[in-house]
Amino acid sequence: MIGIAVIGYGYWGPNLVRNFSLVDDARVVAVVDQRPEQRATVERLYPTVQTYADPADMLLNPDVDAVVIATPVSSHFELSMQALQAGKHVMVEKPMTSTVADGEKLVAEAAERGLTLMVDHTFIYTSAVRKIHELVGDGQLGELYYYDSVRVNLGLFQHDVSVLWDLAVHDLSIMDFLLGQSPTSVAATGIAHVEGQPVNMAYLTCFFEGSTIAHFHVNWLAPVKVRQTLICGSERMVVFDDLEASEKVKVYDKGIVLGDPDQIGFEPRVGYRTGDMWAPRLDVTEALRVEAEHFVDCINTGSTPESDGAAGLRIVRILEAATTSLGLQGAPVEI
Amino acid sequence: MIGIAVIGYGYWGPNLVRNFSLVDDARVVAVVDQRPEQRATVERLYPTVQTYADPADMLLNPDVDAVVIATPVSSHFELSMQALQAGKHVMVEKPMTSTVADGEKLVAEAAERGLTLMVDHTFIYTSAVRKIHELVGDGQLGELYYYDSVRVNLGLFQHDVSVLWDLAVHDLSIMDFLLGQSPTSVAATGIAHVEGQPVNMAYLTCFFEGSTIAHFHVNWLAPVKVRQTLICGSERMVVFDDLEASEKVKVYDKGIVLGDPDQIGFEPRVGYRTGDMWAPRLDVTEALRVEAEHFVDCINTGSTPESDGAAGLRIVRILEAATTSLGLQGAPVEI
Amino acid sequence: MIGIAVIGYGYWGPNLVRNFSLVDDARVVAVVDQRPEQRATVERLYPTVQTYADPADMLLNPDVDAVVIATPVSSHFELSMQALQAGKHVMVEKPMTSTVADGEKLVAEAAERGLTLMVDHTFIYTSAVRKIHELVGDGQLGELYYYDSVRVNLGLFQHDVSVLWDLAVHDLSIMDFLLGQSPTSVAATGIAHVEGQPVNMAYLTCFFEGSTIAHFHVNWLAPVKVRQTLICGSERMVVFDDLEASEKVKVYDKGIVLGDPDQIGFEPRVGYRTGDMWAPRLDVTEALRVEAEHFVDCINTGSTPESDGAAGLRIVRILEAATTSLGLQGAPVEI
Amino acid sequence: MIGIAVIGYGYWGPNLVRNFSLVDDARVVAVVDQRPEQRATVERLYPTVQTYADPADMLLNPDVDAVVIATPVSSHFELSMQALQAGKHVMVEKPMTSTVADGEKLVAEAAERGLTLMVDHTFIYTSAVRKIHELVGDGQLGELYYYDSVRVNLGLFQHDVSVLWDLAVHDLSIMDFLLGQSPTSVAATGIAHVEGQPVNMAYLTCFFEGSTIAHFHVNWLAPVKVRQTLICGSERMVVFDDLEASEKVKVYDKGIVLGDPDQIGFEPRVGYRTGDMWAPRLDVTEALRVEAEHFVDCINTGSTPESDGAAGLRIVRILEAATTSLGLQGAPVEI
Repeated sequence: MIGIAVIGYGYWGPNLVRNFSLVDDARVVAVVDQRPEQRATVERLYPTVQTYADPADMLLNPDVDAVVIATPVSSHFELSMQALQAGKHVMVEKPMTSTVADGEKLVAEAAERGLTLMVDHTFIYTSAVRKIHELVGDGQLGELYYYDSVRVNLGLFQHDVSVLWDLAVHDLSIMDFLLGQSPTSVAATGIAHVEGQPVNMAYLTCFFEGSTIAHFHVNWLAPVKVRQTLICGSERMVVFDDLEASEKVKVYDKGIVLGDPDQIGFEPRVGYRTGDMWAPRLDVTEALRVEAEHFVDCINTGSTPESDGAAGLRIVRILEAATTSLGLQGAPVEI
Repeated sequence: MIGIAVIGYGYWGPNLVRNFSLVDDARVVAVVDQRPEQRATVERLYPTVQTYADPADMLLNPDVDAVVIATPVSSHFELSMQALQAGKHVMVEKPMTSTVADGEKLVAEAAERGLTLMVDHTFIYTSAVRKIHELVGDGQLGELYYYDSVRVNLGLFQHDVSVLWDLAVHDLSIMDFLLGQSPTSVAATGIAHVEGQPVNMAYLTCFFEGSTIAHFHVNWLAPVKVRQTLICGSERMVVFDDLEASEKVKVYDKGIVLGDPDQIGFEPRVGYRTGDMWAPRLDVTEALRVEAEHFVDCINTGSTPESDGAAGLRIVRILEAATTSLGLQGAPVEI
Repeated sequence: MIGIAVIGYGYWGPNLVRNFSLVDDARVVAVVDQRPEQRATVERLYPTVQTYADPADMLLNPDVDAVVIATPVSSHFELSMQALQAGKHVMVEKPMTSTVADGEKLVAEAAERGLTLMVDHTFIYTSAVRKIHELVGDGQLGELYYYDSVRVNLGLFQHDVSVLWDLAVHDLSIMDFLLGQSPTSVAATGIAHVEGQPVNMAYLTCFFEGSTIAHFHVNWLAPVKVRQTLICGSERMVVFDDLEASEKVKVYDKGIVLGDPDQIGFEPRVGYRTGDMWAPRLDVTEALRVEAEHFVDCINTGSTPESDGAAGLRIVRILEAATTSLGLQGAPVEI
Repeated sequence: MIGIAVIGYGYWGPNLVRNFSLVDDARVVAVVDQRPEQRATVERLYPTVQTYADPADMLLNPDVDAVVIATPVSSHFELSMQALQAGKHVMVEKPMTSTVADGEKLVAEAAERGLTLMVDHTFIYTSAVRKIHELVGDGQLGELYYYDSVRVNLGLFQHDVSVLWDLAVHDLSIMDFLLGQSPTSVAATGIAHVEGQPVNMAYLTCFFEGSTIAHFHVNWLAPVKVRQTLICGSERMVVFDDLEASEKVKVYDKGIVLGDPDQIGFEPRVGYRTGDMWAPRLDVTEALRVEAEHFVDCINTGSTPESDGAAGLRIVRILEAATTSLGLQGAPVEI
């Protein structure tokens, strides 16, 4: 039975507590939050859970085996490092850290101590993304041509991080999972419409070895909500629309057809073919539940989480390079 | 009565002939196409129209007052220049020319000879775009924050021009018309998935003075057709979806709200407000008909077309710079 | 402070308990459910609430001022009558009773005792329906021509009531609220696809005085979920789509235009006009919260609920007549 | 080479002339229209086609082998009968005639003379309907449960026929083709909102042997355009949305699951299952072209058209019974 402590009981924390409460091999033993009213809510809903104002006090609790961190990004590194140094396994919200340097330290610390370090890349545990992963793995899409996502709506402006660190992190974690390779360089553009506030809309291109490319549009200032991703391969193309109630994943049997390049005197012409569309049935399990069980299972078995520290670090590398490129009006930055 | 000659009777030419045939003050007197079967079609449908295989022969026809050019981009400059030098008014397909240098020569030639030079930026004559133009002009959107468009589908790969010159040209002409200002620099990324073929998907950012930004996603290799543009201002936001049958333009009374920056000790917080949505009724007149009448009217009155050579040149400047940036993996290029 | 007891803690009961808990002038003092596991859940979540297996025991509790009944339809009459006879105010799930005769008895009993009797017609407390009600009341739709609704999806077959009593009851309560008049006769068709089970799809027409008509399609066996209502008047038309995330109510400035009937020799021709579409902003308050406050307010002030027993009875009258017509393959039945 | 004459060059006639012009084994030799300006248009576009003001004159033309009739319904019988009596094959617009009696006479006349009589049920020649027909024929839908269609928009009020004869005729012809059986009785409701004008909105239920049912909503007075049909079977369900640009036909692997009725003491419970969705690729051939070729082929080979006089008569029978039921406020009428 793994004892879980959750740090941060704001927007996401309650979901974490609820889902870890449902995991067979785990129990939530502690919740940390500076705000008395948040602690009071926990005490009312979960009388058996111990609450703390200070994470340091919680770390002294011997019933805590693992710490789940759902605080603002700026505190991820310090809290994770303290937990690891106290011998606790760690699951931390995305993005894992604010800098690559901090991320590397966490990965090294966890490795040295033989502790599980996992990043909460929730989307890769959804049935939609796992179904696409399966299609990619089976080779059904063929050679991957591009990944294109749009994640925009009228949303709260964060005041400590740009929209890239707030929204693109979701899509980068999906891309990382599906493509299984990392970009070699990035180019990003964007703008802050409110003086003194972070960049509220951004466009990010990731370049890969070969002819794969990825692009992300993230925006806090859009009149309509869009959550659409295109994943295009040489054999099939996928549209992943997270706002669709039932058919979130659509697979199109479409593609280009090349003429015969050996016919001298004729350039290879590019035609296209269209076939059926297919929307696979998706499970309705809550992703966070699947993820919570995976974290506990990794602790118990010593296996590596699908969204381990290395994955978290890969995402932070991209975000850090993207931020640099953003300051250079899109000039490419190598990773 | 203005005598019109159309050069190129392929995909777009028939629309030009049909629409100019309906203009009161004009008549189509000549059609030029190298292909005998295309000339035969014209002869059957329009027995009174003279057909030519060679544009030079047509230019000798004294009944021709104006030439409308619907041929591949690479021939735009030469055909337009010949027509102007023969004393004919010119309406040429977009993009106006393949290079800025050629575009400048055309604009100069037309000015010197006092001839009308117009570029077929069809979209700016649609009722949807004109309605948005009216809203922008009335100040209903407030200060313009951004222009974002997506124009993707599974389409024919052109073999002489990249997707930017083929598709982005539409959106750049709309942006140019609506924003009324030109970008100071651009950054573009993209890729060619078929070796030896042009770039088939591209992302283009345009930077302006102040905090206005524009972005374009154009793509010949997408499983679904998308024609969506967001135009966001400080007061209202517009969604222009050209695939909607009836409500192509939706105006959202939404925006951000800033906290009081004078409250010392409190940073200006960014909230948002949501109000009604409104879809104005749009006329159903065919844009090309409106445009044809405008061209004839400009010839008759000597007034400047809304999509004159200068507008065509502004678009070519952006495309040329974008192509340079594309080769530099997104590095910004000044205009 | 009004003491509330909720009978039935199944699908809807938890929502009732949660919402009444949030009403200032009320507190939930008792919950009744035969199932021990349901009572245990209540005891865990709401330690101060008294639970009962038998409603009769609860009715002896002097802290209970009002009873909210969320049980299967067949028990509505008996439980409501017992509560009224025990001097408790009653809010009962829709449909109010299984028969008109039972409904009349409840209405009479409540009137005689001066108790509040309310039916949970939740939809009339939604911001969408209230906005349409406002438009109708302001005369913005003009003369009402028709009400047409479709409520279909793949849903659980009830085994005690037909799809009319399960689904059409929602739409009939909205229609009753919006039109403010009752049908004079009805005609219904439908079928049971599973032998021995209730009718699982049905079509119901309601005829009114004048030229207003209403129609309802309800269906448990449809591949897609549809929740769409058209409300058409002589001046404007409304589309109410409950599955839309934000623009649930769309108002179309469209209609027919009659030619001049006085022009002798010419029949009055019917043309049409189209204008703008407008989607008013809607509040996001939960309807059940509004309704709970309304019930408590009616108890405190003695005012008549918007969905009082008379409204509940009107709906049961339609359902009873519709069931008769259904057995006659659509033959009209007067009300 | 079959010589074709088209009577009526209004809305649909030009499509007929254009498509028959493209059929290899046919040529359009004559067009009949009372209006001089319509004849002038034909003469300009098709110089080799002979035009007539009077059908009787055209029938004397020995080059005419077959007559295609695209006039108002009220003239269908007389014109078709004259053509048959002149020894011409006939293709007539839907509905075939205004009465069953007239329809029977046409069918008998054609049979006696060994002439081809076909009704222009265009929809059954579309790739969408043919694909659904194939699925039904293969048994992929299982036992057919219901057919439900909605065909509404803001459209021109006809002044000689009700909306049933104008719009439902489309859906009835599709249903007739797909179900392969005829209803035993019908029930219809509806209303005329403009005094002295035909019924402008109607609801029609068709009852069949067994537990199949069909329903149609047709309406000239709706704010939005809907063209949606559900075809539901025990194994799969189809949504046919004619307004979808590409995925007009969607097949859902969904249905109900019955519990074991042999388990004594337990009633058969009805659950449901959901699986994948699949949208088959559809050909893009124009239906009218396919139909024109089929007509010519039937004439040449003597085979029976898929939409022969018998099919046309079945539809007229339903429409006639529906009109009777409409006058009885939905009372069922046997066929």
